[in-house]
Amino acid sequence: MNWWTTDETHDPARTSWVEGADGHADFPIQNLPFGIFSPTGTAPRPGVAIGDAILDLAACAGAGMLPDVAASACSGDTLNALMALPTIDRQALRRRLSDLLSDPAHADRLTPFLHAAAECTLHLPARIGDYTDFYVGIHHANNIGRQFRPDNPLLPNYKYVPIGYHGRASSVRPSGVPVRRPRGQRKPPEADAPLFGPSARLDYELELGVWIGTGNALGDPIAIGQAADHVAGFCLLNDWSARDFQAWEYQPLGPFLAKNFQSTISPWVVTAEAMAPFRLAQPPRPQGDPAPLPYLWDEADQGHGALALTLEVSILTAAMRDRGDAPHRLSIGPASNMYWTVHQIVTHHASNGCNLNPGDLLGTGTISAPERDGYGSLMELSAGGREPLTLPGGETRTFLEDGDEIILKASASAPGFASIGFGACHARIMPA
Amino acid sequence: MNWWTTDETHDPARTSWVEGADGHADFPIQNLPFGIFSPTGTAPRPGVAIGDAILDLAACAGAGMLPDVAASACSGDTLNALMALPTIDRQALRRRLSDLLSDPAHADRLTPFLHAAAECTLHLPARIGDYTDFYVGIHHANNIGRQFRPDNPLLPNYKYVPIGYHGRASSVRPSGVPVRRPRGQRKPPEADAPLFGPSARLDYELELGVWIGTGNALGDPIAIGQAADHVAGFCLLNDWSARDFQAWEYQPLGPFLAKNFQSTISPWVVTAEAMAPFRLAQPPRPQGDPAPLPYLWDEADQGHGALALTLEVSILTAAMRDRGDAPHRLSIGPASNMYWTVHQIVTHHASNGCNLNPGDLLGTGTISAPERDGYGSLMELSAGGREPLTLPGGETRTFLEDGDEIILKASASAPGFASIGFGACHARIMPA
Repeated sequence: MNWWTTDETHDPARTSWVEGADGHADFPIQNLPFGIFSPTGTAPRPGVAIGDAILDLAACAGAGMLPDVAASACSGDTLNALMALPTIDRQALRRRLSDLLSDPAHADRLTPFLHAAAECTLHLPARIGDYTDFYVGIHHANNIGRQFRPDNPLLPNYKYVPIGYHGRASSVRPSGVPVRRPRGQRKPPEADAPLFGPSARLDYELELGVWIGTGNALGDPIAIGQAADHVAGFCLLNDWSARDFQAWEYQPLGPFLAKNFQSTISPWVVTAEAMAPFRLAQPPRPQGDPAPLPYLWDEADQGHGALALTLEVSILTAAMRDRGDAPHRLSIGPASNMYWTVHQIVTHHASNGCNLNPGDLLGTGTISAPERDGYGSLMELSAGGREPLTLPGGETRTFLEDGDEIILKASASAPGFASIGFGACHARIMPA
Repeated sequence: MNWWTTDETHDPARTSWVEGADGHADFPIQNLPFGIFSPTGTAPRPGVAIGDAILDLAACAGAGMLPDVAASACSGDTLNALMALPTIDRQALRRRLSDLLSDPAHADRLTPFLHAAAECTLHLPARIGDYTDFYVGIHHANNIGRQFRPDNPLLPNYKYVPIGYHGRASSVRPSGVPVRRPRGQRKPPEADAPLFGPSARLDYELELGVWIGTGNALGDPIAIGQAADHVAGFCLLNDWSARDFQAWEYQPLGPFLAKNFQSTISPWVVTAEAMAPFRLAQPPRPQGDPAPLPYLWDEADQGHGALALTLEVSILTAAMRDRGDAPHRLSIGPASNMYWTVHQIVTHHASNGCNLNPGDLLGTGTISAPERDGYGSLMELSAGGREPLTLPGGETRTFLEDGDEIILKASASAPGFASIGFGACHARIMPA
């Protein structure tokens, strides 16, 4: 599959016998993302999304309908074992599922294993061993850097080092789980000492999440040419951030309580295989920028390092919800605004021998477009709180208020292929 | 037990029928630390150290010799379930084990469950969900800060915020596992661009590790008065650091590949209960320092917030090993050189609602004494590499060389009580 061939599972003419799947905005048969779900009142189990339904993979495995290697990984209440499979086995499972869900001959046998997604709970797809957040959105880094360091927004290491830091695995939650406004220390410029209380500058961050597939042993780096084999799939990630806490605490060891109170992900793992048609050449670096060091450079990676993904953020305030308004779009932009590719961050992470494990989660960092309508956080959209946004209905926002809901979306499209989406990634702010 | 009464398990007159336990430097009957061990060729299981032996807790539980609540937690290959027990149940288990190992009437029945420690492998005691490292050693923060920022060694937040950051859980390893010298980016001052290769400034850091016991739910802070109930125990922690990588990568998001290639811990969990006699009043803050904010202040905590622990670092180079020399002591100092208490870092960590889980590991950060002979890293001892140390035999060191072994030790003592130790925490540097 890699460097990045498509096959019959990507054929835009392929249809599914599952009602409503064809032309589904997120989950047509060309997507087939994996997740952990539970029909009301039952135990969590692996499933695959098809249209507005979920196919129970554990039940399919129990009925002997899946390839043997994959079947044993389709049990339990996490996808860690499935993610740990070699790419070739995940591909075989994908082909089998695509055949089962397209050929009407299988409909009778599979229909009992289908559940209406609306009647199921979605859980975290994996036990996340470690969660690492990067900072590859160069426009975001510029925008934020300018607020903290007007003369020197981008530090000298940025164009050499895929900057990253470890985040909190325990507080990652799937879409829909409310976010309690955190308390913490902040120091207003006029105060002599910091105050402790609810954040007054609560923000979201639009990020892409990367699920690690097969891992590497401690001490064994991952060559850039092999990085793709270690990526199981993708999700959306909202890295909620308390900007007031962040400004006060982040030196010298980086963000901590400003970020670790909760992170929200879309619960479906859109596989690296499903994304094959949506690989783009990595945009060339601006003239004058240094070339990546050799351990981060691979010609094939540059040819397929970007993703043809459109990312979008919307807000729905309590007042809008009361009025029955639709969410209001805050920004839209392409995921190609990443200075480092997904494979470069994987290789960099393991370059010192750090071991990655199946089910680890990497965040890209906030992906902002160069123009204001593609900014991926309120910190950027409101210029650090100095320029309030006016929403339809007349409300204004600098940062998030209680009751606000933030909705992230991602959709992948490419000429000659069916578009696919990532599904829901939303959460509402609750009072402190 | 808390605020911190001792009981019969701490009685210095109590002896054990296990040969060699009485007067053992680390593991007399007053200690009784928990760990995960495997006799050669068998599966890992919970055990308790007594002298030079290990008592198989799973076997004791199977024989009906432990309290029911604790017995069910004494199985499997991690101590997470044991750590999750309420303090009162861990105390009951400790009392029972102390009775079993002191009363010779139990010797016949228990002897088959004893293994010679020298013939066992020790494993990580818990599945570490998240690992967080703090920076509470104010003398270390001053020493290191002076090297990076001569005019401004301690940042304005230091005396208000227990500074911490998330580390890597996957690369924590028990004592004895060699450390491969990491490769990475470093930028010598004279170079135009960074180089990629083996670290030339590899260092150790002497830290105390804190094992989280019962956790807190996401969104629910831990009051400072309750923090003690969330601490299961302690270990030694060597936070290996590549100083050249750290200097180049750490801005703006903190240390990453400079630290996450491996961290070494002592594998025995010295329980909070065992440490009861070794609680000291937290030293008063220097005149003029701000009082901790109210959420970090508890009178009882200040009365018992420090630990009467002596910490020690030694080195054994390849040449010393070849000559049969004993390790050479690099530093010795008290653990009371912590600006924030263990309970303050627990409460701060959860103050924004971040959920801690049983088996999470917190590091204190490097604990240095004010004087040079108590500095907890080579970065401090060699003044950033400018002042080489001369070792017995004439070798010199600024940073670690391949073949060097670093040995951390901790021992707790207090008048009227038997001293206890933490056991081995050592590892050797292997070539890149």
